[in-house]
Amino acid sequence: MSGHPFSTPVASRLEEPPAGTSVHQVLELVGDKLAATEQVLRCHLESDVPFIEDAGRYLADSGGKRMRPALLLLAARLLGHDSEEEVTYAAVVEFIHTATLIHDDIIDHSDLRRGRETVNRRWGNSLTVLLGDWIYTKAMRMALAHDNLEVIRQLTNATLRMTEGEMLSLERLGSIDLSVEEYFSIIDRKTAYLFSAACSIPCLIRPAHPEGAIPLRSYGRALGNCFQLVDDLLDFTASQGELGKPVLSDLKEGKLTLPLLLLLPRVTPKQRQLVQFVLEDRAFERTTAQEILDLVDSEGTLAEVEHMARAFADEAREALAFFPPSDARSALEIAPEFVLNRRS
Amino acid sequence: MSGHPFSTPVASRLEEPPAGTSVHQVLELVGDKLAATEQVLRCHLESDVPFIEDAGRYLADSGGKRMRPALLLLAARLLGHDSEEEVTYAAVVEFIHTATLIHDDIIDHSDLRRGRETVNRRWGNSLTVLLGDWIYTKAMRMALAHDNLEVIRQLTNATLRMTEGEMLSLERLGSIDLSVEEYFSIIDRKTAYLFSAACSIPCLIRPAHPEGAIPLRSYGRALGNCFQLVDDLLDFTASQGELGKPVLSDLKEGKLTLPLLLLLPRVTPKQRQLVQFVLEDRAFERTTAQEILDLVDSEGTLAEVEHMARAFADEAREALAFFPPSDARSALEIAPEFVLNRRS
Repeated sequence: MSGHPFSTPVASRLEEPPAGTSVHQVLELVGDKLAATEQVLRCHLESDVPFIEDAGRYLADSGGKRMRPALLLLAARLLGHDSEEEVTYAAVVEFIHTATLIHDDIIDHSDLRRGRETVNRRWGNSLTVLLGDWIYTKAMRMALAHDNLEVIRQLTNATLRMTEGEMLSLERLGSIDLSVEEYFSIIDRKTAYLFSAACSIPCLIRPAHPEGAIPLRSYGRALGNCFQLVDDLLDFTASQGELGKPVLSDLKEGKLTLPLLLLLPRVTPKQRQLVQFVLEDRAFERTTAQEILDLVDSEGTLAEVEHMARAFADEAREALAFFPPSDARSALEIAPEFVLNRRS
Repeated sequence: MSGHPFSTPVASRLEEPPAGTSVHQVLELVGDKLAATEQVLRCHLESDVPFIEDAGRYLADSGGKRMRPALLLLAARLLGHDSEEEVTYAAVVEFIHTATLIHDDIIDHSDLRRGRETVNRRWGNSLTVLLGDWIYTKAMRMALAHDNLEVIRQLTNATLRMTEGEMLSLERLGSIDLSVEEYFSIIDRKTAYLFSAACSIPCLIRPAHPEGAIPLRSYGRALGNCFQLVDDLLDFTASQGELGKPVLSDLKEGKLTLPLLLLLPRVTPKQRQLVQFVLEDRAFERTTAQEILDLVDSEGTLAEVEHMARAFADEAREALAFFPPSDARSALEIAPEFVLNRRS
């Protein structure tokens, strides 16, 4: 992949993050609370069922970006909260995300996640179905600790939307006629809703800040869409070593993402057929990954998608104008930049 | 199977149900509310996702005994409740039960349930994993309608226990050295907890009846254990036509149930090996179903298990002595008899 126009981070060629800021500095604001979240995650993966103990430890050691917990904790700080409650919810959204990934990896027959064997690969599908169920239910049980019904409502709504998004995606798997509209409906449900819930749940912590719900929901939703578009781009631009999973894996799984959706109406029937081949074969048999990458390069749709991702990032930042300036607001303003710059 | 000592209903040879009572009369007490529950179930299976619509209709038409809703509604009546709230929870426990069955059928590779193709057989494992997730989350969302946190807590606790029970069962699948203690720990989690939750949740409906929680929980748990023992017996005694699934299917799936667990310490190594063959082959290749049935008959362990099921039924009934006599108490007293007599 070296020499590929996107082998530098997605956004870095357009604009550097604001001077003097780094992921480290942004996360420092909620560093103690992120560490506390990690403790809560580990502690709630303990069980008298041997498999939960083993798989729980494996998952806790697998890392992850903890993006949803960090956003939730920053939003809580933005609203002036400082309690155990936001730490609980930070762990809860990470658990819900984890449960979803676990089930998605079964469905996608994925063998690798974050450079390690997936749970399904290691323990088989049956135990993995149950582990996802258990972690999701555990998340709900944890969230109940603070007697805040509205939070549970938001979490169940987000989970319903995520499950529906995954179903819609699965029903259209391998279809070359997926529309851009359908694509956005899928990523909105699959990704953006949970980001939106993570960012707006702090408004429900008492003393409640109902006035912050709309801007924080908009922020989360736009950032979630941005995150997903970057995810789609990375499948074209990152190397396997960076991503922990094979490149062009979406297409090989039968999933058309935005760079190809924008490309298809513009190419010749013969070129279109190359994409169709991969969707049918679920492998590069009748074409090569390089041929698909060259096609995408020739039409420049990666740059278009990057442009759209940047527009979502701007939309997210703009939603924050509602709040007075603060360290938390600055951190949330910088977050989209890191999403655009992420390599994995 | 004709001529088999258990080809008559499990309990009918010992004792007839109290004169003048029938399932019909028992259910009549809560007939309107069961009908309302059915409406709620159907209405909440509607969705803008085509697959949920299709599979939801299929599930709603598949029937089911609605035992947990009926128990919940009878317990609510026992406590003097008469509101929409118990109807919601009746639908919720049936949804949780359904979600669990859907995931269990994936795990057990089951093709048939209630005489019809399973969801996994019809729509494949991937969509079925998601349907189970969706129905469970929907159940939680429905339960939230009455702002009763303690109910949600009970439901999540029961779901965690059910998932753990299924994991424990799966981890010991095919093991001939499963202990009777492990067996009871599994069925307690897999079956009895949700019965217990269904029977005791009405204590949390306002005006709350905390004093009823212990007897109703005991009732539900004993009845759940009774139900599961009868389920295990039916796998030996019912015909495929009655049960909607093949006979001795538990053993063929690698699951040792109580009739065999009691038998194994008493038989010769050679006889023990016959059971081992089926656990290994997951089929009747090196022995026949009839050979296993004859072995069980010769040691009389079906009658022992039936005796234990009856003891649980008695325990359930005794827990009701806490409550003053009423039509609902009479109905709950008779319920164990129907559990003992059920043929499918």
